[in-house]
Amino acid sequence: MKLQTAIDRVSLTEACHLAAQLDGKTDIIEMGTSLVKDYGNLAIEKLRGVIHHSELLVDSKTIDEGAYEFNQGFKFGADIITVMGAASYDTLQVCYEVSQQINKTMMIDLLEVSDEKIKKILDFPQAIYTLHHSIDKKDQQDAVASVSDFHQKFPQINRLAIAGGIDLKQATALAQQNLVEVVIVGSKITKASSMNEAVNEFMKEIKGYDSNNYERNK
Amino acid sequence: MKLQTAIDRVSLTEACHLAAQLDGKTDIIEMGTSLVKDYGNLAIEKLRGVIHHSELLVDSKTIDEGAYEFNQGFKFGADIITVMGAASYDTLQVCYEVSQQINKTMMIDLLEVSDEKIKKILDFPQAIYTLHHSIDKKDQQDAVASVSDFHQKFPQINRLAIAGGIDLKQATALAQQNLVEVVIVGSKITKASSMNEAVNEFMKEIKGYDSNNYERNK
Repeated sequence: MKLQTAIDRVSLTEACHLAAQLDGKTDIIEMGTSLVKDYGNLAIEKLRGVIHHSELLVDSKTIDEGAYEFNQGFKFGADIITVMGAASYDTLQVCYEVSQQINKTMMIDLLEVSDEKIKKILDFPQAIYTLHHSIDKKDQQDAVASVSDFHQKFPQINRLAIAGGIDLKQATALAQQNLVEVVIVGSKITKASSMNEAVNEFMKEIKGYDSNNYERNK
Repeated sequence: MKLQTAIDRVSLTEACHLAAQLDGKTDIIEMGTSLVKDYGNLAIEKLRGVIHHSELLVDSKTIDEGAYEFNQGFKFGADIITVMGAASYDTLQVCYEVSQQINKTMMIDLLEVSDEKIKKILDFPQAIYTLHHSIDKKDQQDAVASVSDFHQKFPQINRLAIAGGIDLKQATALAQQNLVEVVIVGSKITKASSMNEAVNEFMKEIKGYDSNNYERNK
């Protein structure tokens, strides 16, 4: 299981500072939607400039104009870009085509997507499908149960991720469950009193090794 | 009926140039999602700086983190911000609260939203609900028929807009139909050989007067 660490709601300078610290200590560094919305795709280059070991995911949450947004995101340095499962099939298809053509990855955000809609968007085998609990919702999700339930309904999806308030205990349980390829963690790492210790702790729990030795163990 | 003119897929410098030309000649100037994604919310200020008569809509297409995105957008100068109807009810609610608190407007983009979902998000009386045909879809919409159909299904929504490939003929028919508050036009104006003539022609058709005398006629 990979750890994706999301950076959100900070200045671009602070985001670059955090990304430089996280580089190589988490599998994927996420430029959160708040950074995309505040600073734009052109700021991807700034983050790309300080990331040499981890992958860079841009949480674009594209929902229309798929080709334009995906081409821009990859041009400025993204390895993975998100598209909403709520988008039209045609949007998902064009995002997938752009990603596949240049060997990059599309992540489909399933925020608020019904099972009926999911059934219609199952044919992107190289895409990562992300179970996502809205940050604006007041209730909590049971991550392991959500994944188990989803896997039973859609066993054909073999690249899965999960996001939304995941803490260390949930991440550990998800690693044991072994159905999810990527676990996405935000403030539990980036707002921890020591970010370095927090990311290290997550990596140890989910991978069984010290992220300070990540490059050696990869 | 108001005319909203959308600026998309140009450099920020060009967008400011177009906005300055359109100011006062269209009711609403839209900073398109492509500009938000490329340059970020901070660029709203640049457009705001050249717009003195028209309203400024930021097509944020917010789908989560509603309070953060709406507060940022309004802070930097938006009069109207878009949220996706596909977002969770909680996201829509918080965007509405932020908008109402400071007397600004929320526009709900109904792109790919089912009737079942629409039924659950009818309780935002001051919001503008936008029928939106995805730019990535290969088929065309019949704007007048879409509005008529929608109005029959949801007569309680009295602030309506429509977007997606609207041309002069469709805009004229929509004005005659008299159900829509805002018609949204993009490339048919901004990519016309003469943008000034094009915006003038749309305003003449839908308002019955010359947009060069807009301020006098308002």
